[in-house]
Amino acid sequence: MKISNIDVSTYPNSEKIYVDGKLFPIKVAMRRIRQYPTVKIEDGQRVEYPNAPVTVYDTSGVYTDPAHTYDVNEGIPRLRESWIAERGDTEVLPDITSEYGRMRKADPSLDAIRFPHSYKPRRAAKGKKITQMDYARAGIITAEMEYVAIRENLDNEARGISTYITPEFVRQEIAAGRAVLPGNPNHPEAEPMIIGKAFAVKLNTNIGNSALSSGIEEEVAKAVWSCYWGGDTLMDLSTGDNIHETREWIIRNCPVPVGTVPIYQALEKVRGRVKDLTWEIYRDTLIEQAEQGVDYFTIHAGALREHAELIKERTTGCVSRGGSIMVQWATIHNQQSFLYEHFDEICEILAQYDVAISLGDGMRPGCTHDANDRSQFLELDVLGELTERAWAHGVQVLIEGPGHVPMQKIQENMDRQRQVCHEAPFYTLGPITTDIAPGYDHITSAIGAAIIGRLGTAMICYVTPKEHLALPTLEDVREGVIAYKIAAHAADLAKGFPGANVRDDALSKARYEFRWKDQFNLSLDPEKARRFYLESRRAAADADDRFCTMCGPNFCAMRISQNCEAQA
Amino acid sequence: MKISNIDVSTYPNSEKIYVDGKLFPIKVAMRRIRQYPTVKIEDGQRVEYPNAPVTVYDTSGVYTDPAHTYDVNEGIPRLRESWIAERGDTEVLPDITSEYGRMRKADPSLDAIRFPHSYKPRRAAKGKKITQMDYARAGIITAEMEYVAIRENLDNEARGISTYITPEFVRQEIAAGRAVLPGNPNHPEAEPMIIGKAFAVKLNTNIGNSALSSGIEEEVAKAVWSCYWGGDTLMDLSTGDNIHETREWIIRNCPVPVGTVPIYQALEKVRGRVKDLTWEIYRDTLIEQAEQGVDYFTIHAGALREHAELIKERTTGCVSRGGSIMVQWATIHNQQSFLYEHFDEICEILAQYDVAISLGDGMRPGCTHDANDRSQFLELDVLGELTERAWAHGVQVLIEGPGHVPMQKIQENMDRQRQVCHEAPFYTLGPITTDIAPGYDHITSAIGAAIIGRLGTAMICYVTPKEHLALPTLEDVREGVIAYKIAAHAADLAKGFPGANVRDDALSKARYEFRWKDQFNLSLDPEKARRFYLESRRAAADADDRFCTMCGPNFCAMRISQNCEAQA
Repeated sequence: MKISNIDVSTYPNSEKIYVDGKLFPIKVAMRRIRQYPTVKIEDGQRVEYPNAPVTVYDTSGVYTDPAHTYDVNEGIPRLRESWIAERGDTEVLPDITSEYGRMRKADPSLDAIRFPHSYKPRRAAKGKKITQMDYARAGIITAEMEYVAIRENLDNEARGISTYITPEFVRQEIAAGRAVLPGNPNHPEAEPMIIGKAFAVKLNTNIGNSALSSGIEEEVAKAVWSCYWGGDTLMDLSTGDNIHETREWIIRNCPVPVGTVPIYQALEKVRGRVKDLTWEIYRDTLIEQAEQGVDYFTIHAGALREHAELIKERTTGCVSRGGSIMVQWATIHNQQSFLYEHFDEICEILAQYDVAISLGDGMRPGCTHDANDRSQFLELDVLGELTERAWAHGVQVLIEGPGHVPMQKIQENMDRQRQVCHEAPFYTLGPITTDIAPGYDHITSAIGAAIIGRLGTAMICYVTPKEHLALPTLEDVREGVIAYKIAAHAADLAKGFPGANVRDDALSKARYEFRWKDQFNLSLDPEKARRFYLESRRAAADADDRFCTMCGPNFCAMRISQNCEAQA
Repeated sequence: MKISNIDVSTYPNSEKIYVDGKLFPIKVAMRRIRQYPTVKIEDGQRVEYPNAPVTVYDTSGVYTDPAHTYDVNEGIPRLRESWIAERGDTEVLPDITSEYGRMRKADPSLDAIRFPHSYKPRRAAKGKKITQMDYARAGIITAEMEYVAIRENLDNEARGISTYITPEFVRQEIAAGRAVLPGNPNHPEAEPMIIGKAFAVKLNTNIGNSALSSGIEEEVAKAVWSCYWGGDTLMDLSTGDNIHETREWIIRNCPVPVGTVPIYQALEKVRGRVKDLTWEIYRDTLIEQAEQGVDYFTIHAGALREHAELIKERTTGCVSRGGSIMVQWATIHNQQSFLYEHFDEICEILAQYDVAISLGDGMRPGCTHDANDRSQFLELDVLGELTERAWAHGVQVLIEGPGHVPMQKIQENMDRQRQVCHEAPFYTLGPITTDIAPGYDHITSAIGAAIIGRLGTAMICYVTPKEHLALPTLEDVREGVIAYKIAAHAADLAKGFPGANVRDDALSKARYEFRWKDQFNLSLDPEKARRFYLESRRAAADADDRFCTMCGPNFCAMRISQNCEAQA
């Protein structure tokens, strides 16, 4: 099978730049947006004042590098492969370890849908500790740590903006568990990034087919598309057919860390019968996915048998797929959740592949009525306990949270999480702040995400306009990502993240000076901004009028204001 | 000229209800959304449990009353005409007072675009004080006050939800200046509503043509459309041709209070030459518009000569049209603003028509960089002084605020406003919380609006996706209104407004029980929610599956969760 590239173009008037490391021979990708000069008439002469380019965080990988010829059937460059090999503490396995993975590999009927290239899995060598947390605790700064330090700072140094983010600072944050740097050696295509309160707020996107929809090509297109618009990590939540093969295509083409919820695939393996789930099937799934390169697993180990009673008090019960599966399993078998019981074994596996654990919020509230209730906070307490257990194995930890929370209850979520989960990074879905707007939940939740991001949440999980109604299309992915870029950036501004205001200030200056093209190019969605303007102008050629279509020339406040300045 | 009705349909499975007053023979309009029963199988039998209908605040006026035949060429019923007449403290004038209005009336070339009916203006009888504030201070509860008390409470009484909102409470809030009840007797078509911190957060929509676009039919359609979707008040910001006639069409068809910025029309009268503006032209414009029925005027009396210097410190100068006009006028003439100098005379005029004054924020920041600066807060101090002067005349006062404010600076805006403006209701544009998303400023600003609404802002002014780029189309109006309904409602939930959670809880219950139609019908935009669902289902007929297209049947958390409950 050959599939088609999705058409993502480069960004207008932008160039891909690569900043050299000082400690390691790394090249950190960023995007530089050029600006037009400010033109003034002085003494009857036209004088140009240059405007410095603006460097922005870039999640789009090689897809926006014109020097790279991209073909999804080849996958993207394996950036970190040599870094990992050179550390000499991993081994390349002769074959994949998981039974299921070997079965799929041996099945010729799958040849038609398989990714055309295969790689041997890599795992910690015997006795070696290879997670970024292990390195950080041992005082080792890795290439990945330097990469993210440079990446977070953009061009702050050149601008004279002081920052606290150094490779050593990154190391300390990871060592303390306050930040996560996803780093599965089997996903060397991923550009290093970091998730933590001290860093820029990140956003996760979800894609994935269900039994009812969507094929491999469509999911790969969504993955590329979400990175193009600004997704920092990507969760593949597929639950339909050919999950294994779909995931391979996604990972091999994904420049950002990939997460999954392994219980979904485990359930598919028992044909959707919760009763038939076993620890052994789940364990094999963990290994299967770790060797494909999944960077973090959502594991609902805090959803316990005890929750079956508690969720009866709720309006919407349990709305987490993973959480509801585990509670049902525990109820059917009258046993404690096997994820909780086998948690240390899970961590032992994950540590060998530096797969981070994202402790799932199986009891997140599914409506504002259920927010901050006993179910939710009991689970959070359990997640705090599990955090320490994971850290004991050197496994990096994220804590998943919110869902539907009215604004006045958001702060308590952040405060309790920080307290009981020992400052492990918080990773929240929204929260959605009112239940009454299906079709607009990217907005109801961007409100909550911006608020909780400002309070210290490290990563926010996007919500698309289709939430509660259907799976997102490409356009929905774009709308969801931009809404969450807005929330994340508004939070960065509010928390005073170093250099966060540079892009805002540049765009505002361009706006005031009627440099329309710069306004578009500096925006999160240049294509849409430009289209809205030109549709209204009904003039496709140029966009340098000194007024806009909202007010017309006589009523342009900025124009009048500039005249005032000239006269005063 | 005849213009066409815009096609607004009734809301699905809803009925218009009218609640009787107890003090006055009034009928308060609301919308009641019926629900389907919850169906359970008990002992093999199908059992239905009814779900109570949900009553919601309704701004759509007679447009959604099937008993009313609507024709924009006739205007809508003059609901308050008899209430006003019966108070006996106003007089009907033999002709319109303003010179400009008389000139337009006498011009036969305008017959073609004139609204087909005319009404004689009404004004306070000599020596009578007729503003709602005057009545409230005199201890009088008006029909309007009872109307809004009933309207704010919906069916709280029947639900046993305790509330503090009584007609007497309304009177006290208006008397204290903490709430505004717009009430120009020349706009008797408007259904009474109230703006104040103690009440549900309201949202204002802006429409209006510019020199570059849009005709009368289009603007009337936008007005009706914005009320249909939930706009609580409507500002006509027209700056193009035939402002006077356009306004007449809008007011005669508008069931919500209408606001304007009279300086816009004054400037048109001097052909856009700021220098030529005079107090006399402005004064005539106030009277012209007051007699047409404008309910509140934005007056930028706090934008002073002193601001010309201050705005030089800014990145985007002055972005308020009215503010920039006044500062330029003051600079040109080297005089203080005539709005400031003649403020008492303005108030004397407004008091005669119970036109509320919305003290304009001419110095609102136009970018996050300029937020909370000296220009802005100097003006706010002036607005505080003007508030007391207006109140001395019995004129109701709103204070306009924000614009672009990063999240960490929002609280200071609310705190200072409350302090220096003596608790007059705050009415804010957004604020927009980051500048980098033109094309999505309904979202950047809904974040700020929700936050400031929670803190006590009484009314938020919507922003559409076209902000900064173009004038909104009908679809943009809808997107903007819904984004702001979300912000306002999220704020109501967060401030614990009595009964605010009823709709959320009902929708959540419907969602959990897979009553898809109820979920759609209870939502802010039933048409879109339903369309998103059905497009994905590709089945136009029915929507009662017990799972959705996001996860498919095996992975439906709510379904699994219900099974758990049944088993536990």
